Amino acid sequence: MTLTSICQKAFEAKYEVQNLSTEIKNKALRAVAEEIVAESDSIIAANEIDLAHAKENGMHPGMIDRLTLNDKRIEAIAEGLRQVADLPDPIGEVMEEFTRPNGMRIKKVRVPMGVVGIIYESRPNVTPDAFALTFKSGNAVILKGGSDCINSNIAITKAIKKALEESGVTPEAIQLIEDTDRAVTKEFMTMKQYVDVLIPRGSAGLIRAVTENSNIPVIETGTGNCHIYVDKDADLEKAIPIIINAKTQRIGVCNAAESLVVHEDIKDRFLPLFSKAMKEHNVEVRADADSKPFIEGSIDATEEDFGKEYLDYIISVKTVKNVDEAIAHINKYNTGHSECIVTENKETAQRFLDRVDAACVYVNVSTRFTDGFEFGLGAEIGISTQKLHARGPMGLKELTSYKYEITGEGQIRG
Amino acid sequence: MTLTSICQKAFEAKYEVQNLSTEIKNKALRAVAEEIVAESDSIIAANEIDLAHAKENGMHPGMIDRLTLNDKRIEAIAEGLRQVADLPDPIGEVMEEFTRPNGMRIKKVRVPMGVVGIIYESRPNVTPDAFALTFKSGNAVILKGGSDCINSNIAITKAIKKALEESGVTPEAIQLIEDTDRAVTKEFMTMKQYVDVLIPRGSAGLIRAVTENSNIPVIETGTGNCHIYVDKDADLEKAIPIIINAKTQRIGVCNAAESLVVHEDIKDRFLPLFSKAMKEHNVEVRADADSKPFIEGSIDATEEDFGKEYLDYIISVKTVKNVDEAIAHINKYNTGHSECIVTENKETAQRFLDRVDAACVYVNVSTRFTDGFEFGLGAEIGISTQKLHARGPMGLKELTSYKYEITGEGQIRG
Repeated sequence: MTLTSICQKAFEAKYEVQNLSTEIKNKALRAVAEEIVAESDSIIAANEIDLAHAKENGMHPGMIDRLTLNDKRIEAIAEGLRQVADLPDPIGEVMEEFTRPNGMRIKKVRVPMGVVGIIYESRPNVTPDAFALTFKSGNAVILKGGSDCINSNIAITKAIKKALEESGVTPEAIQLIEDTDRAVTKEFMTMKQYVDVLIPRGSAGLIRAVTENSNIPVIETGTGNCHIYVDKDADLEKAIPIIINAKTQRIGVCNAAESLVVHEDIKDRFLPLFSKAMKEHNVEVRADADSKPFIEGSIDATEEDFGKEYLDYIISVKTVKNVDEAIAHINKYNTGHSECIVTENKETAQRFLDRVDAACVYVNVSTRFTDGFEFGLGAEIGISTQKLHARGPMGLKELTSYKYEITGEGQIRG
Repeated sequence: MTLTSICQKAFEAKYEVQNLSTEIKNKALRAVAEEIVAESDSIIAANEIDLAHAKENGMHPGMIDRLTLNDKRIEAIAEGLRQVADLPDPIGEVMEEFTRPNGMRIKKVRVPMGVVGIIYESRPNVTPDAFALTFKSGNAVILKGGSDCINSNIAITKAIKKALEESGVTPEAIQLIEDTDRAVTKEFMTMKQYVDVLIPRGSAGLIRAVTENSNIPVIETGTGNCHIYVDKDADLEKAIPIIINAKTQRIGVCNAAESLVVHEDIKDRFLPLFSKAMKEHNVEVRADADSKPFIEGSIDATEEDFGKEYLDYIISVKTVKNVDEAIAHINKYNTGHSECIVTENKETAQRFLDRVDAACVYVNVSTRFTDGFEFGLGAEIGISTQKLHARGPMGLKELTSYKYEITGEGQIRG
């Protein structure tokens, strides 16, 4: 199938998907969960082909782990599908309703986006997750996964299509681009005629490539150069566990901390505690000139370090004179994801909340909470780091748009 | 000033503008209104230079009219500024607020976008309008107007900056790109580091150039290939005035009708009435083969006609077998702006409302009502024709984003 025909099929399917009842959508999602479990042997066999290629090509063990499917992970995928079935359906909500002096009635109604495109890397679990969220929010979806998991994605998509068909829903609601040629991916980014929104999920490089090449509206997700600022009025007993948690609880995620910003007045008291904690957790520290003497074994931070999302056991340290310098530093280097201040001073906290430009700004809480489930919003398609459309965790509502429906009796404009 | 330094100034100003109180913003907007009236002589003198160049260059009379400023138009500009001062301030609204089981409090707060870029054509009234809306919604703005009105824009911007300064607000809140070189405009579209959202206002060509070249998130506005579908169950007494109004009340606007779609069952009854009405209003009709015999003096419509926003006394006609063919035709050719069905059949109307993919879908009402004031939403920066972020009339709220503010007592993730 050519890329154009894939896009056309999604474009046609969207009219059916956007008008499906909640009941049918939920039934179909549960059928997909069952079918994926029923097909786990064939999905795992396909995954083993991908894994064999990946190992031949010397893929990094962390990435091999993300690529791997097994019975337990397939059960988790099925459970994720069932959870989305249980979430409330956002479609059809009347957001506003009013009558104008000339008698025309205006309704603002929540509707699907239409066709959502998702470009992601070699994580086969994204395939059913992304399908579930876009389908429940009434969209057709076109998926372009990493070439390293193409066999897994084909097997999963086949199971989804079969379950949709058996539920009386068009299997064209999900489209997988099987051609792994990079030129095809680039062409996909220009299919504005058919695709309403494009969501890249993955590395900063992937996201940059999409924003630079796409003429489709894009939602940027997932790069997080997150900071913890420890203020002069911080409770140091809170600061240390927050930093350990934000830095080390899971190093490869976008809401992990990458940099410590510290008020100079407390450097002699606080940095030795910080140094000890980082050593205990095997974290390398890259420190600026003012902080380095207080951090045993630290190395010099360069300008480049402050802009870096390490996703590793490394943290940079920057010393500042006051909260405003901390805010300016963070606003210069952050990626608009999650930022934290540790302070007992309410005024300072409020200034940080008001002035730091990020999706999620924390006071005395670890940045690791930026997550749809942790916020109580349910499953998410990603964390938006842009200000247009949606910011922070993107759940079902964030995969919708709205339209105005106006009814009258022949009103014309004077 | 270089483009980079202009962008940097806006980037720095945004931190001040986003934290201004409603009172100061309103006072500043009223001061700007007064200053523009006080400076009307110098603004009109600058405008006369632009008009002289435009006439020398043989500009179309309709565009000369849009370019022209006079005392009456300057008073209208000032009144527009005062109206924006009177609108409620969207910033700081707590959109949601909840506490999680671990005790952390989450607030979703409405915040400005930050820096808004606006690229527009030679209409000097857009300069103060765009400033007023972006400023009231807490944003810094960078304006790039058409080169044909550069002298008018410089004079208006000077007055705005002076009034801001006298109101104790940074004059850097408004930036005008004075360099009229096209390469600079193109470079502006890649200033993602400083600009949060880019809004092109103008022709389809301008909007396409922006979506193709920008790496900044874009909101598309203002192209309208709008249709009126007259169903077999239409009240023809309503249909004719709606078509006349939508086509001829103001031909150069984005919500004017460009195409009639008609059910074949009524072509013999309805098209002669339509033909007569169009003739009376000097509208040229380009008809498909089925409708042509019923429309005196019509010429053959080509495929190209159906995709065309004429902005002129021209209308195309397409005959269809049923409402579904009408919907498919409209969804193929429309620009996502405003679409209308004329019918007395409630089921048919609902099908049209559910399935036509556009910002505003009308039943028995002229498409000319797609407008912030007509909807009762107040002044607007444009009509969004995309589904991301905002759709339809874009007022103050649509120029904002939100952030999550999370406060706690040392919560960490398990």
